[in-house]
Amino acid sequence: RRSFHLTCSLNNTSRKNIVPPLDTFGRRHIGPSKKEQEYQLSTLGYKDFESFLNDVIPENVRANGNNNKHFPLINTDKSHTAPNYSESEFGELVENVANKNQLVKTLIGMGYYNVKIPPAIIRNVFENPEWYTQYTPYQAEISQGRLESMMNYQTMITDLTGLSISNASLLDEATAAGEAMVMVMGSDRKKRKTFLVDSKIYPNTLSVLRTRARGFEIDVKVVDISTEVIKANEKDAFGILVQYPGADGSIFDYSHLASTAHASNMRVVAATDLLALTLMKTPGEWGADVAVGSTQRFGLPMGFGGPHAGFFACNDEFKRKMPGRLVGLSKDRLGNPAYRLALQTREQHIRREKATSNICTAQALLANMSAFYAIYHGPEGLRQIAARIYAITNVLKCGLESAGFKILNKNHFFDTLTINVQSADALIKRALAHGYNLRKVSDTSISISMDESITNEDLSQLFNVFQISSSPEAFTEKLNSGKSVNTVDELVVSAFPKELQRQTPYLQHIVFNRYHSETELMRYIRYLQSKDLSLAHAMIPLGSCTMKLNAVSEMNPVSNPKFANIHPYAPKDQVQGYEFLINDLELMLTNLTGFDAASFQPNSGASGEYTGLSVIRAYQKSIGEDYRNICLIPVSAHGTNPASANMAGLKVVSVKCLNNGNLDLDDLKVKAEKYSDNLAAFMVTYPSTFGIFEHGVKETLSIIHENGGQVYFDGANMNAMVGLCKAGELGADVCHFNLHKTFCIPHGGGGPGAGPICVKSHLADFLPSSPVVKCGGTKSIGSVSSSPYGSASILPISWAYMRMMGLDGLRDASKAALLNANYMAARLAPYYKLVYSNENNRCAHEFILDAREFKATASIEATDIAKRLQDYSFHAPTLSWPITNTLMVEPTESESMYEMDRFCDALISIRQEIREIEEGKQPKDNNLLTNAPHPQKDLVSEEWNRPYSRERAVYPVPILSERKFWPTVARLDDAYGDKKFVLYLRSYAVK
Amino acid sequence: RRSFHLTCSLNNTSRKNIVPPLDTFGRRHIGPSKKEQEYQLSTLGYKDFESFLNDVIPENVRANGNNNKHFPLINTDKSHTAPNYSESEFGELVENVANKNQLVKTLIGMGYYNVKIPPAIIRNVFENPEWYTQYTPYQAEISQGRLESMMNYQTMITDLTGLSISNASLLDEATAAGEAMVMVMGSDRKKRKTFLVDSKIYPNTLSVLRTRARGFEIDVKVVDISTEVIKANEKDAFGILVQYPGADGSIFDYSHLASTAHASNMRVVAATDLLALTLMKTPGEWGADVAVGSTQRFGLPMGFGGPHAGFFACNDEFKRKMPGRLVGLSKDRLGNPAYRLALQTREQHIRREKATSNICTAQALLANMSAFYAIYHGPEGLRQIAARIYAITNVLKCGLESAGFKILNKNHFFDTLTINVQSADALIKRALAHGYNLRKVSDTSISISMDESITNEDLSQLFNVFQISSSPEAFTEKLNSGKSVNTVDELVVSAFPKELQRQTPYLQHIVFNRYHSETELMRYIRYLQSKDLSLAHAMIPLGSCTMKLNAVSEMNPVSNPKFANIHPYAPKDQVQGYEFLINDLELMLTNLTGFDAASFQPNSGASGEYTGLSVIRAYQKSIGEDYRNICLIPVSAHGTNPASANMAGLKVVSVKCLNNGNLDLDDLKVKAEKYSDNLAAFMVTYPSTFGIFEHGVKETLSIIHENGGQVYFDGANMNAMVGLCKAGELGADVCHFNLHKTFCIPHGGGGPGAGPICVKSHLADFLPSSPVVKCGGTKSIGSVSSSPYGSASILPISWAYMRMMGLDGLRDASKAALLNANYMAARLAPYYKLVYSNENNRCAHEFILDAREFKATASIEATDIAKRLQDYSFHAPTLSWPITNTLMVEPTESESMYEMDRFCDALISIRQEIREIEEGKQPKDNNLLTNAPHPQKDLVSEEWNRPYSRERAVYPVPILSERKFWPTVARLDDAYGDKKFVLYLRSYAVK
Ligand SMILES: Cc1ncc(COP(=O)(O)O)c(C=O)c1O
Ligand SMILES: Cc1ncc(COP(=O)(O)O)c(C=O)c1O
Ligand SMILES: O=C([O-])O
Repeated sequence: RRSFHLTCSLNNTSRKNIVPPLDTFGRRHIGPSKKEQEYQLSTLGYKDFESFLNDVIPENVRANGNNNKHFPLINTDKSHTAPNYSESEFGELVENVANKNQLVKTLIGMGYYNVKIPPAIIRNVFENPEWYTQYTPYQAEISQGRLESMMNYQTMITDLTGLSISNASLLDEATAAGEAMVMVMGSDRKKRKTFLVDSKIYPNTLSVLRTRARGFEIDVKVVDISTEVIKANEKDAFGILVQYPGADGSIFDYSHLASTAHASNMRVVAATDLLALTLMKTPGEWGADVAVGSTQRFGLPMGFGGPHAGFFACNDEFKRKMPGRLVGLSKDRLGNPAYRLALQTREQHIRREKATSNICTAQALLANMSAFYAIYHGPEGLRQIAARIYAITNVLKCGLESAGFKILNKNHFFDTLTINVQSADALIKRALAHGYNLRKVSDTSISISMDESITNEDLSQLFNVFQISSSPEAFTEKLNSGKSVNTVDELVVSAFPKELQRQTPYLQHIVFNRYHSETELMRYIRYLQSKDLSLAHAMIPLGSCTMKLNAVSEMNPVSNPKFANIHPYAPKDQVQGYEFLINDLELMLTNLTGFDAASFQPNSGASGEYTGLSVIRAYQKSIGEDYRNICLIPVSAHGTNPASANMAGLKVVSVKCLNNGNLDLDDLKVKAEKYSDNLAAFMVTYPSTFGIFEHGVKETLSIIHENGGQVYFDGANMNAMVGLCKAGELGADVCHFNLHKTFCIPHGGGGPGAGPICVKSHLADFLPSSPVVKCGGTKSIGSVSSSPYGSASILPISWAYMRMMGLDGLRDASKAALLNANYMAARLAPYYKLVYSNENNRCAHEFILDAREFKATASIEATDIAKRLQDYSFHAPTLSWPITNTLMVEPTESESMYEMDRFCDALISIRQEIREIEEGKQPKDNNLLTNAPHPQKDLVSEEWNRPYSRERAVYPVPILSERKFWPTVARLDDAYGDKKFVLYLRSYAVK
Repeated sequence: RRSFHLTCSLNNTSRKNIVPPLDTFGRRHIGPSKKEQEYQLSTLGYKDFESFLNDVIPENVRANGNNNKHFPLINTDKSHTAPNYSESEFGELVENVANKNQLVKTLIGMGYYNVKIPPAIIRNVFENPEWYTQYTPYQAEISQGRLESMMNYQTMITDLTGLSISNASLLDEATAAGEAMVMVMGSDRKKRKTFLVDSKIYPNTLSVLRTRARGFEIDVKVVDISTEVIKANEKDAFGILVQYPGADGSIFDYSHLASTAHASNMRVVAATDLLALTLMKTPGEWGADVAVGSTQRFGLPMGFGGPHAGFFACNDEFKRKMPGRLVGLSKDRLGNPAYRLALQTREQHIRREKATSNICTAQALLANMSAFYAIYHGPEGLRQIAARIYAITNVLKCGLESAGFKILNKNHFFDTLTINVQSADALIKRALAHGYNLRKVSDTSISISMDESITNEDLSQLFNVFQISSSPEAFTEKLNSGKSVNTVDELVVSAFPKELQRQTPYLQHIVFNRYHSETELMRYIRYLQSKDLSLAHAMIPLGSCTMKLNAVSEMNPVSNPKFANIHPYAPKDQVQGYEFLINDLELMLTNLTGFDAASFQPNSGASGEYTGLSVIRAYQKSIGEDYRNICLIPVSAHGTNPASANMAGLKVVSVKCLNNGNLDLDDLKVKAEKYSDNLAAFMVTYPSTFGIFEHGVKETLSIIHENGGQVYFDGANMNAMVGLCKAGELGADVCHFNLHKTFCIPHGGGGPGAGPICVKSHLADFLPSSPVVKCGGTKSIGSVSSSPYGSASILPISWAYMRMMGLDGLRDASKAALLNANYMAARLAPYYKLVYSNENNRCAHEFILDAREFKATASIEATDIAKRLQDYSFHAPTLSWPITNTLMVEPTESESMYEMDRFCDALISIRQEIREIEEGKQPKDNNLLTNAPHPQKDLVSEEWNRPYSRERAVYPVPILSERKFWPTVARLDDAYGDKKFVLYLRSYAVK
């Protein structure tokens, strides 16, 4: 109706709004009302926020002046404050931005395809907070639904790739390939350092491999793979990678290649396509040791490049070395089957600088969606989809050949044809005029990839594009040897090359064969969901995870086809909406925090760390300081920090902490000076992982700079700082943001995430780039993930948050987060020891409760408290991190007084339960905590030889009898734990 | 991308589709696979469907030829079959149809306003199958969530209207007014027959009143209401109705009027606006006895007219006479508070022809959404929304007056101004050019209604439309007596007329004051939902209710703004999408069933019945047979049938049934002949409400015709017939369709629904019309509901279903529904007596299980079985209807073998439990059934003096220990029942 000029509208704050809209967002996002905040402040003894903040944040840390002028969310805005959009205004704004993207059917392929996402999966999973608001399922007893779903996912991946183990997803195809390269290198007894990559690799994957290789000093050699080449490189090469089918669409039988490689003790990695694997011999069968790829075309929107689940499957050999989370079937204490995360000893949070992977946040939600896609279609349905694509590709090929076009991948193909043309540009222009984007391969060749979405009409249009005179029908009949058929599916059986045909069954388990009606699928999804505690049920006070509201108005744009259905390599003029949004987000993030440029390519915090350190190293190299290789990291740092440093080729030196939790400035100084010659970087988390705004931060960071190092700022705790302090001003050179923490992207049960980094101007030239699309720095480190802007399609969530909050709202959120944490800390302090607080007795946005003393007094550990909290229908705080046997609580600003009080009441009641053990009223080995959680099965048993009543076990506070979320299994048997477990569903016959 | 020419595309089946899409819908909608159906047939002893159908449907009932040619879904389609659209094709199609509607901001008002629906309510309620797929909460123990929500709704209505009782919604404002008129007439001791309606009534409401009045021989007199007029009519008039605020926007204090009316023993009905009532003195306070209206502007999309909840509140006096469902707070057997439907003795299913209301399906989902809207905003938030609207209207008024316009409702107003203009047409055209629809009142007056959505920009634009030279800002300052303010909210306090100001508090209960953050609202919604069993959990085999899949691709269009945000009185050229869709749906429905025309105005089955009978009467009157006033109705008919007949002014004569369940043809013949002179109509349900395709139907219907009557066909059981038999061909003259049964509109927990009627050509002229929009017959009966096309915005659901199934798919669905029912009946027959079956031992799409014998053998009634089924996590079948102490099972085609088997297993297991009582192994007064259901609270108690184990109580079959849905309260105390209950939440102070 109205022509809404975006830039103008974004900046128009001059005109007085006499009837401002009432659907403002801030008060919906922030839990406590203004009045309740006054009460909270008063309980802490403050009259106003200012005096409270003075006690929490050191003066020299708060941003200079602390006024809006100092936080110009958008430069062009004369008033220096970004206007905050109401929810309905934002709806209009984002619709306008989306409409700047153009939906052109894109057949560019290269790992991204048009898909048909079953509507039941969109509504019941993708748009359902009970699926997207959870954290990683570390609390297994209240996460059996997602764990089962991830098990389904792992089974799907192992079945389709023909390998024996799959993890529960990695960030994308290219990083999965990177992980594979590093993993197989690590297994090479001969310590060889060359990795042979076939030239048919996707360019983005190659770019990521090259970047990754740098930190490990691997030589990535691109070759036209052959047995000869393998033999010629056997002295140096520890492994090979082939793309199967290749980037040009060709398919080869790699059996011979694989055995040649194995003969030289090389490992074989296949980057592959799950859909093709329903027709093709699996990598496992022809001898690959590892298979990686993306599940995008299993029901995930292209989303301008992501998020998508990267899959990773391998042989048993790598079981204890593979990266990523693994779900295993174990049992609970009652002996009932129960799922849990398995073999965590592989992961960065345990191995730290010895880890070769820093993966933490992965792509759980997307992996689950893909699993449901496979469940809905079943083995036969998937095969049909693949067969239809193959058949369509055949018809197109016949047509092209009849019109005299030469197909360059002439041996075998699945969905992609590379075609010789007179002028690629002319043809691409012609295709565009017909409504299609094709891929330019060279000046005289293009390629085209068929997918699930292709219709009869598309086929006819493509015939027009190539000016093929006869009709698709004619070729169909011809291909069917004259038989006139109504579908080309039958073609496949005869046409697909015998030696490449898949002969092995897959997805035989009942789970892939029962839920083929929408009703059954919906019920299965909802059944799984009913086992999982999410933000839709209760607060999830995970310290360092910032589990805040993921509002519907923030989530809505992600479902908009004009964001969802955009190929990452679509021409620039078709993606103006994304460009605007990403630029605007960059502007806001950098302005807010005092940096100069950003990259959105990293799709997790850990990936941001690795990227930031790589950028630092590239910068140092550019000024002739590539000898700098020491990274100082506080002992309190998150495991991803040392792991990332290791991946970036840095040597980690730990810095101590004082008894009061603060960084040991003396130790830092000593080490900075000691390593001064080689000091590359210091990684700091601020406020600290102990939840304190340390005084010394500015001093600390100048020590680093004085000793020639760069400062990497881990932004995981940014929620304490937005609008109040600026990392750039404190001295950071690089900083990552976990948009899935501070900026409202939901955690999805363990991903997706987005971990953009912001840098100071001297580092901007080195930011990640893409081999396909112009982006990033001029002296870029290369790519760090598959797509130019990482998990692009979820960036609108953070953008929505910032645009609807405005600067004032963002600051209000930080203030509320600080107040909520201190309110809870004060309520709990009489009952639990707080591990650290500052000199004013205040914490930042989170605090740590000590459980260590209970070991001696009651044989109780933090885990027991965590499990007992489940009986109170709560998710535990972060357990034993960063300090063993503690609980770290972070309420975030979104939690209401009501919920925080409920949670405190639960913890206080548990303290009383512990006291009963301490006082000998409950035995140490049979009490409310050690037996926790109490699932329904426990309750139902006839015998009840516990020193407490059933009622007390499950309804320890009255409200639970009305409003209870049940753990579905008893405590997982940790002893049984990692020894006996199953990583995929054992197939059993379908009736 | 592609220009998609709709008509062409809809009919284009000539071109061969060589790559038909795989995302076909039928196999997702229908539970059992083809293979499973073969198995089902074989268990019944059939080799193919044809022989099965021959045993189920009498030959002379199956549609002639039974080929596709006989069911031309669309006339223009040469092939005579409608193509079935795949889900993705349909997505494109419906998008194109939606785009034919134009979003022009419509300020026409008249009961329909732009709203801002909180996104959290859209996603978590409106688009959440756990809220929209339930049936009416008759099984209270597994419906406490919705019952609580409806209680919130009732509290909201009583609080806002100032009256003491509210029902749980009626169909819309106009029908609520009709119900009020009839109810107050019924209470008039003097049996007066005139109803005075103030001229400021909405025209659509007046039209419905006039139609309704006919059946009850009420004289509706439109007057300019005043104390004089009241006195002048005191001999004849039993009541008055005023619109408050009036249609022209004016507000008067009706206190004096009300006392005058009361002095003459007249009752006062106020049609009113909930939002205005946050500022205005309530009808209760000024003396109204009844208040009615629509909750549309409390967070419901305009949707081209509906569905919206009609509200109905009244004095205690009418407690046992008021129409509609009532939720009451009662207690369960353990003494815990529990909600239930109260005072059911008022309703049609009990009172039958003595009922003056036929309401059955109402607007539960919409009522719940409105309640959540009020909960989210709270009393202060609602007042702010109203105040802002009032303030904006003030600014506009000042502007208009400054430009010399005369305001016609010059006394007081809330949101609407009626304005004198030179040429209404010219002004409306000018407004449209600026992007606004205004209301034409007369050639020289227009009106304009402000609403929640109005922005600063809108206000400026409206100033432009009226060429007001100064700015809105200027008037704001003026209105604030020179004070320059940034918001006009403050205006209200001073400007709103003192004598009309609301002084009483409202929505003080905690539920309206706690859930104001999105996190809290989401959790409250999800908490309530967790108490309710829906189709997302298990089958709901309610006979006669057809609880089939409500697929996401069918539901999606309802959320499309181009369907949702359309005003019912938008100019015709702006609603071409709706026109196309409704025409197409009419074509499909009439062609499928052998009729000639349809009306979509009735928004429930019962409303369809009443409409159809009224049409028959109008027709008979037109041929001089208005003396015909007898309606024959089988004793087995649904309660709505006799109630509807009564409302249409017909005298009901019952027709007997035989022992085998069939209609007693002899009795019918006798009565038809006996009443031949006055026979108006016969109402028939087919297949019968006993679930049988009776042989005699054609003969029966000709008997009626021979005796001068018309045949009304109750289409509730249409799901057994679609694509197999044609009601029109069997002899029906009118037929209603419950689109919320056969055609996939979800039941929403008791509404919305749509009950269009189809008629033969001789009746077409009499179909309902609208006083505002051209539609319906030339000799129309007038309106039967508020808006021209009833619940227009949910019609896309049924349209989607028909378009995606195509004719073949629709027939497949009927066949599957018949097969599923017979499969279950056969599995259960060895355990339970089936009350009826046909001569081949077959039922239609449903069957009745007999529980009567268990009374003697085990003191068990059908209710006990129903409650025990809850322990098995199932919803009971239809209880004691149409026969007391029986259970009627209807699986529908959407249920899978797996689910039906689970359900049969449960019933078989329950039969075994009954046998234990019969055999004396369990006492008659303390057993698994009489104590059912067993909620968690039951289980938790320390004492357990039952003759069965806890485990058997709650996990009687193994799967339940994994997958259990829990009843949340014990059995409702029916004795306590209707005596002591509370119909609204007692307010208690907010902390
Ligand atoms: C302090 C800190 N740094 C880094 C990370 C890693 O972030 P991500 O999970 O996004 O990779 C986390 C995650 O919890 C963290 O808490
Ligand atoms: C046979 C029959 N007729 C009429 C109706 C009334 O339909 P509605 O609830 O849509 O008013 C029903 C409802 O269950 C029914 O079963
Ligand atoms: O679909 C749901 O939002 O639960």
